Amino acid sequence: MIKTAITPRVSETDGVGHVNNTIVPVWFEAGRRTIFKIFTPDLSFKKWRMALVHMSVDFEFQIRFDEDAEVRTWIEHVGTKSFTVAEEIWQEERKCATGKAIYVNFNYVTQQSEPICNEIRQKLDDLQDGLN
Amino acid sequence: MIKTAITPRVSETDGVGHVNNTIVPVWFEAGRRTIFKIFTPDLSFKKWRMALVHMSVDFEFQIRFDEDAEVRTWIEHVGTKSFTVAEEIWQEERKCATGKAIYVNFNYVTQQSEPICNEIRQKLDDLQDGLN
Amino acid sequence: MIKTAITPRVSETDGVGHVNNTIVPVWFEAGRRTIFKIFTPDLSFKKWRMALVHMSVDFEFQIRFDEDAEVRTWIEHVGTKSFTVAEEIWQEERKCATGKAIYVNFNYVTQQSEPICNEIRQKLDDLQDGLN
Amino acid sequence: MIKTAITPRVSETDGVGHVNNTIVPVWFEAGRRTIFKIFTPDLSFKKWRMALVHMSVDFEFQIRFDEDAEVRTWIEHVGTKSFTVAEEIWQEERKCATGKAIYVNFNYVTQQSEPICNEIRQKLDDLQDGLN
Repeated sequence: MIKTAITPRVSETDGVGHVNNTIVPVWFEAGRRTIFKIFTPDLSFKKWRMALVHMSVDFEFQIRFDEDAEVRTWIEHVGTKSFTVAEEIWQEERKCATGKAIYVNFNYVTQQSEPICNEIRQKLDDLQDGLN
Repeated sequence: MIKTAITPRVSETDGVGHVNNTIVPVWFEAGRRTIFKIFTPDLSFKKWRMALVHMSVDFEFQIRFDEDAEVRTWIEHVGTKSFTVAEEIWQEERKCATGKAIYVNFNYVTQQSEPICNEIRQKLDDLQDGLN
Repeated sequence: MIKTAITPRVSETDGVGHVNNTIVPVWFEAGRRTIFKIFTPDLSFKKWRMALVHMSVDFEFQIRFDEDAEVRTWIEHVGTKSFTVAEEIWQEERKCATGKAIYVNFNYVTQQSEPICNEIRQKLDDLQDGLN
Repeated sequence: MIKTAITPRVSETDGVGHVNNTIVPVWFEAGRRTIFKIFTPDLSFKKWRMALVHMSVDFEFQIRFDEDAEVRTWIEHVGTKSFTVAEEIWQEERKCATGKAIYVNFNYVTQQSEPICNEIRQKLDDLQDGLN
């Protein structure tokens, strides 16, 4: 499991007084940096491979501005050309949001999805634990 | 159906070259302004009523920076305390993203969800058409 | 003068209750789309020319969520390789923010600034009026 | 001097390939959290005191996505009702951006600026060093 520490920003809150719901996908994306590196080790956009095809979020608790948050990220499933990322946002002992993101291994030059090679598959498998 | 015109911003693109996926929920939220007004006619955050409990997005086409976009928003279902918003992002003749958002009628003072009153229910029902 | 209509988004407000100050540069950038097109007519990032070297903002009035805003943009000065954009954000009869942005004509391939050609200079000159 | 570590996010880059210029004020604001706490120790928006009246940024180097960044923040000057924050963004040995932000001690209830009390003034003075 990947743990990413996040300090909420004033610009991420909204008038209702908590972190705005559109920030949750931003934090989840921030939590996937390790996964981006598996596909593109130097993080160069010219060699970028991953394309998001689906995401869903359940909002369970309002996210407070005054507490640090933690994004927890792991791989739930690896298919032939796609894989599923599971993710959560925690503050203290509260789970605030649960998400799921499905990415395909995408070749931006040919604009085609491609099978995930064994080397990358192994690295994704190594992230397949949702336990601490 | 509510149609909201959006001109993509440079700040909404990412290094891969299209509008970043985290912007899709931002545009969807922008498309719900009419619905926010149904619950809070003067748009005052002190009287805010709606709380998002779930959202999901299917990404179907990359969103281009160089074309105007349109967010299409309508009500799919109204329950006792919650309702479902259906939403799409279009560019030219391409549907780029399809989303669903479930909101509850939330009392931020008592921190409780409450039944949707008939007057609001009627206004939501009036937005229940997904046809052009 | 370029006038760009903006409807504030919930995600652009902050916990204090108004549009967050970091959104002002976002709206100003949105107001420069016509200028981006002068340098890069098809808005392709591969042919992008402009690089921001300086910006400043004076915040004069809180920007309200419940009112539409207008960004006003014009060219204040054109130098050999750089030019200055003047910009304002208005709501109703209130000027909320005044900004200045200095861009250079930048060649991202050679990573060098270059003189502004006469054709572009003429188009920038045509935007040199701050009057309505 | 306050040092705030920032890991750039994909959503913060733009099509030109670097961190978008509108993110610089976002990171600078993130770097001011310690100062927000001086005025509002529990970070409650209901007791918020600070209002930004001016900001300026010089952009010196493109900010890369693939490297961690550091925001450096200190107090440059404390006046009767206002104070000036100096700020920089660094990546490796490169200074990428230099900023200045002027805040007033603002009473959001009366909508008036107020003198900075001695206790807060002392804490701001303690942040008046731009040296490492």
